[in-house]
Amino acid sequence: MHRVVVVGAGFGGLSASRALVGQDVDVTVVDQRNFHTFQPLLYEVATAGLESGDVAYPIRVIFGKAGNVTFRMARVTGVDWDRRQVLLDGARPLPFDSLVVASGATARFFGIPGAPEHSFPLYTLTDARRLRDHILRRLEDVDAGAGGPEPPGALTFVVVGGGPTGVEVAGALAELLDVAVRHDGFRFHRSDGRIVLIDGLDRLLTPFRESASAYAADTLSHRGIELLMGHTVKRVRADSVELEDGTVLPTRTVVWAGGVTVETTVAGEIDVPTGPNGRVMVGPDLTVAGREDVYAVGDAAAVPRGGNGPGADSVCPQVAQVAIQSGDHAARQILAKLAGRPTAPFVYRDKGIMATIGRRAAVTQFRSGRVVRGTLGWLAWLGLHLVYLVGFRNKIVVFVNWSWRYLSWGSGPRIIVSEESVAALDDGDGPPAA
Amino acid sequence: MHRVVVVGAGFGGLSASRALVGQDVDVTVVDQRNFHTFQPLLYEVATAGLESGDVAYPIRVIFGKAGNVTFRMARVTGVDWDRRQVLLDGARPLPFDSLVVASGATARFFGIPGAPEHSFPLYTLTDARRLRDHILRRLEDVDAGAGGPEPPGALTFVVVGGGPTGVEVAGALAELLDVAVRHDGFRFHRSDGRIVLIDGLDRLLTPFRESASAYAADTLSHRGIELLMGHTVKRVRADSVELEDGTVLPTRTVVWAGGVTVETTVAGEIDVPTGPNGRVMVGPDLTVAGREDVYAVGDAAAVPRGGNGPGADSVCPQVAQVAIQSGDHAARQILAKLAGRPTAPFVYRDKGIMATIGRRAAVTQFRSGRVVRGTLGWLAWLGLHLVYLVGFRNKIVVFVNWSWRYLSWGSGPRIIVSEESVAALDDGDGPPAA
Repeated sequence: MHRVVVVGAGFGGLSASRALVGQDVDVTVVDQRNFHTFQPLLYEVATAGLESGDVAYPIRVIFGKAGNVTFRMARVTGVDWDRRQVLLDGARPLPFDSLVVASGATARFFGIPGAPEHSFPLYTLTDARRLRDHILRRLEDVDAGAGGPEPPGALTFVVVGGGPTGVEVAGALAELLDVAVRHDGFRFHRSDGRIVLIDGLDRLLTPFRESASAYAADTLSHRGIELLMGHTVKRVRADSVELEDGTVLPTRTVVWAGGVTVETTVAGEIDVPTGPNGRVMVGPDLTVAGREDVYAVGDAAAVPRGGNGPGADSVCPQVAQVAIQSGDHAARQILAKLAGRPTAPFVYRDKGIMATIGRRAAVTQFRSGRVVRGTLGWLAWLGLHLVYLVGFRNKIVVFVNWSWRYLSWGSGPRIIVSEESVAALDDGDGPPAA
Repeated sequence: MHRVVVVGAGFGGLSASRALVGQDVDVTVVDQRNFHTFQPLLYEVATAGLESGDVAYPIRVIFGKAGNVTFRMARVTGVDWDRRQVLLDGARPLPFDSLVVASGATARFFGIPGAPEHSFPLYTLTDARRLRDHILRRLEDVDAGAGGPEPPGALTFVVVGGGPTGVEVAGALAELLDVAVRHDGFRFHRSDGRIVLIDGLDRLLTPFRESASAYAADTLSHRGIELLMGHTVKRVRADSVELEDGTVLPTRTVVWAGGVTVETTVAGEIDVPTGPNGRVMVGPDLTVAGREDVYAVGDAAAVPRGGNGPGADSVCPQVAQVAIQSGDHAARQILAKLAGRPTAPFVYRDKGIMATIGRRAAVTQFRSGRVVRGTLGWLAWLGLHLVYLVGFRNKIVVFVNWSWRYLSWGSGPRIIVSEESVAALDDGDGPPAA
């Protein structure tokens, strides 16, 4: 039977694999983690609003009943193009007839010194948990007085990047500080906590219309978040961020929401043609140039927008909708070829963009350009994210968590679980080594 | 104001602190973790039935509204008895007028070679998460074939200890294997998995009546668990367990449910008189001998049973009920002394004992000696544990998780989240260094 290997179980890989369930192909999904991560809600895990398990779903459960899809937990180390095998770390290679590269991306630091070592990216569940543990530890350390005067910037949280992730993290951080002071008995004042959002552009959420950007800026400012627009980061240190204009912001927490790259991923390391930012170059049908049975989708690929409209030649943004649609498209092309039909070009169907700005405020911009904001925007955001959450149980649990949180803030998983954090109580507790 | 320091936020410390809420004392709770752990359900976390957050509750949330209770996240390194201060790692010492030592216990290995290095205890949330990640990795490794013939014992799980924890883990492990094979698409057979329960005594659950022990043994056997009663462990290795009679059981997973000790805890290291197993010796009112304003409670203390019945001089078992009652008693004695009243002796009110043996089977033995078992016993167990779970939200979430699990098994947090586990995909993946 025709063997398909799908590398990665993010939105792209999952979408491709699902489209192949029950078809006359033998599918193996490979991922170094045994769960799918619902990345749009990672910022909630990072700010102690949701549990890890609320945004992680076991891959085996998704395909448990699909007779033609198997899962392999392993790290991909390369591809043997001559033998047509995917090479795995410590396990037998996986032979393939068709290959779907959906290996995602990693944080992009733009060569800024200190950023990889001293900032917290937010792309994986591990990233989110590390950031949460770090933030909660900062609060505990400041509360405990730590045996001396508080170091400068101890309660300053700097978010780099004014896209959806940056806006969402900044908004949620403000709420976390509110709750900590109001309900958790910390002895510092809310005004001791500073949240600074930095972006090199002159407005937030640049893919949105200006009215949406202005709304986001107003809402964040109203919640006490300082916006440093038109500023770029020159250097990150363990205890500060230095801007291009020479300003130095003392801080112990830099959240990196500055974009992603493919360069250091599987797709960046196998022998395929890559374009800007390391994204794999693909043709209109999403096949990799020169390799007709190899597809690249999602964040890993430079997915062409397609269609006949303006910007048909441009490349799609690295967002969930593109991954879902491109993964599905790749799977359908595999089936088309097997049936002797020609492949079709990919066309991105833009369903709109949305970003939440904390409690009961969000902006949704539909394809038509219409912008919905405020509580209605937030409800739209909530509904859509619940719909897209993979598992039924997760939806219920997330809904219960959120409902309870919005009703009372009385609880929330504000627990520090990392062993390192417990062990390193009196350490400087810097971010993880990259 | 009279300053009370409570060391530890387990059942004992929490119970003591709660009894002091709103009283005319200034209470500081110290714990190296920022959450309370509901230990009776750790086995569910270890076998992927519940999330970490379902059994962990932020201490600050519990006391957030109590004006006279503050929390300090820190590790206690000792007590300066002359200055009456609790010494903390990396933070200012905490002066006290009254001290409650509720620092719990740790796994007891009885000097068995290899046990500390090669077995998984189950006393903390970290223990439970490590064990879960290890078990799930074992299943993945066997499924992947790992590039060669399966090592002996790869799917053999050995549980040492036939008390409630051992029985509960063994039962839940059997269910986890059932689910893995039935729903998760693993390619090994259920019969490839072996669960062995070892105990030196000749029956399970010795605090229970013999009829309860027999029921537990029947239920476990019926579920395919091998019982090695009357056997003691001589040595644990990375790939096997050796019994006193020379039998060698190949295994990669040894769960240590063999009891706890206080020797290596805070209570074991401060200068107080200790008895068998390192437990702090206390008088009838739970004060430490020679230190009238210092109390020891819960697992850390040799709590006398008290009262007038038979066994009044004996020491209570290290269980949650004893911790809850002794913590509460210590707090009331502090208040009595402050009010100029004499202290009262502690009397343990035995409310009965219970153990679950997996899905819809449990034994509950009431104080009267009456034993309830089967589904009714399980419902009693479920209700009681939900009642005792600390937070309102946790109860709902746990109930949803359980309901869903028992209705369909379709989901469950079977995710491997430890970074080490992801990083060490091809390693031997032994248990953590002790």
